[in-house]
Amino acid sequence: MSLVLDQAAQDLLFREARTANTFSDEPVTEEQVQAIYDLVKFGPTSMNQSPLRIVLVRSDEARQRLVPLMSEGNQKKTGSAPLVAILAADNEFHEELPELFPHFPQAKDLFGDRAGREQAAALNAALQAAYFIVGVRAAGLAAGPMTGFDFAGVQKEFLDDDHTPLMIVNIGKPGEDAWFPRSPRLAFDKAVTTV
Amino acid sequence: MSLVLDQAAQDLLFREARTANTFSDEPVTEEQVQAIYDLVKFGPTSMNQSPLRIVLVRSDEARQRLVPLMSEGNQKKTGSAPLVAILAADNEFHEELPELFPHFPQAKDLFGDRAGREQAAALNAALQAAYFIVGVRAAGLAAGPMTGFDFAGVQKEFLDDDHTPLMIVNIGKPGEDAWFPRSPRLAFDKAVTTV
Repeated sequence: MSLVLDQAAQDLLFREARTANTFSDEPVTEEQVQAIYDLVKFGPTSMNQSPLRIVLVRSDEARQRLVPLMSEGNQKKTGSAPLVAILAADNEFHEELPELFPHFPQAKDLFGDRAGREQAAALNAALQAAYFIVGVRAAGLAAGPMTGFDFAGVQKEFLDDDHTPLMIVNIGKPGEDAWFPRSPRLAFDKAVTTV
Repeated sequence: MSLVLDQAAQDLLFREARTANTFSDEPVTEEQVQAIYDLVKFGPTSMNQSPLRIVLVRSDEARQRLVPLMSEGNQKKTGSAPLVAILAADNEFHEELPELFPHFPQAKDLFGDRAGREQAAALNAALQAAYFIVGVRAAGLAAGPMTGFDFAGVQKEFLDDDHTPLMIVNIGKPGEDAWFPRSPRLAFDKAVTTV
């Protein structure tokens, strides 16, 4: 075998894990979310920028504000998922660099330009969003990541001008008929070339 | 324990895994790269867009073209890593959607606008780049992802107008003094809020 990761872990994180569209009623606990974060926070980002910020939508009041901002096909699942997380990029992440990248105290000064920061934040928060999805699966839960929502509306209702929404993730144990049949993937030779 | 993933897998993928700056001479085989791809291709993307494309830099000739395009601090490690992979987003990914998303034959038509495609490709290829880094670690190898390089130059030398470089990843077994001490991560309460 060319992989070191054991088969059960491969299945849990990638091979058997699926994007869930329905969920059971079993709640997602604060302890589970903390365990997920404490695992995936170690995933690498450029200069340890770590720009991902997560808003957990737990109250009924917040859920009721969020659901109408989802596209029609996503409203029912976001309305019923045990937990919904808004993933966003912090465009002012550079303020944390003196703490996050202590061996290079000038790191913050490289990000004086907002447009450059937004670009860096978008890339690195997306990497962290993927680590987060992997982490949800590591907790034995299913993730349902979505980009079908009103981005400006979600930013206005749940974030601020410095935080750009990236995706929204339904989280929970899969329910009945939780997923479609797996779609095909690109063959290795179509995705990978060698020079 | 709140995680289902076993401790050895947690360590392999996140807790003990580190960004490597030096590598041993041990080659990275084609079988390893295929095994990595065949695992992480299952990571979710929006509508199964799967826009990540990977260029493996294996020949000396290609390596010699790449190294001068790296920023100075990255040249030595990219010059000596057993394998270097250029990760890029395919901005024409929608051409594959009839194959990749067969249960919604109109999917391709949603991406008639190039600017919209570039945005979708950038986000989803970044997710896949993170899955790829996790996959490299799943193969018992260290990844050294970098964004410090001449993006226009790499696009011109190794890609084309339809493929946007995202990052370059050195891959191999870690060498001597492969990494700095681990930088701190944001505390849970600084990264996660609840509403």
